[in-house]
Amino acid sequence: MSEVEETLERVKIQAGVEGYVICSKQGQVLRRLPSMTQAQAEIYADFMSQLSRKARGVVRDLNPKNELRYLRLRAKRHEVLVAFDQEFLVIVIQRWTPAST
Amino acid sequence: MSEVEETLERVKIQAGVEGYVICSKQGQVLRRLPSMTQAQAEIYADFMSQLSRKARGVVRDLNPKNELRYLRLRAKRHEVLVAFDQEFLVIVIQRWTPAST
Repeated sequence: MSEVEETLERVKIQAGVEGYVICSKQGQVLRRLPSMTQAQAEIYADFMSQLSRKARGVVRDLNPKNELRYLRLRAKRHEVLVAFDQEFLVIVIQRWTPAST
Repeated sequence: MSEVEETLERVKIQAGVEGYVICSKQGQVLRRLPSMTQAQAEIYADFMSQLSRKARGVVRDLNPKNELRYLRLRAKRHEVLVAFDQEFLVIVIQRWTPAST
């Protein structure tokens, strides 16, 4: 897991990251940002594992050769990123600000 | 606001309630469960105010006489309830367990 831990250290120090959760496909929390409570992490794991399962199903139904690898939910000032692995989901919650143009 | 505060006290002592947020339609946090951080409350306010606006728009488009009053997002072990008022959104995050049958 050392490579994973290194990557998480890098994620953690990004500006705006307010949380991350790694969970199994069944929604079981395996790692979380230490400043999050277990209860908070479970809420993200629960919702994102179910949403991902549905989204992946839809993509597969449209074309069985396609596979959803990545999901981004964006609101006005925050976004939730979900990356999929064979066994795990990586969920990152971060603040974002629109580029000033 | 005393009636509101009373209602919130009642919400707070319900078993399984892990958080609540009251926010303006623009997503500005007005009240939160004291054990939630401001940052967490802002994430819920941000996502739910945007989702609500879209959901209300869809319901209105289908029939202009209809109005969405209430929204429930349910995952395996948690649910997020959103109730709408003219000016405010009330968001409650709670654990739930399926009825054993």
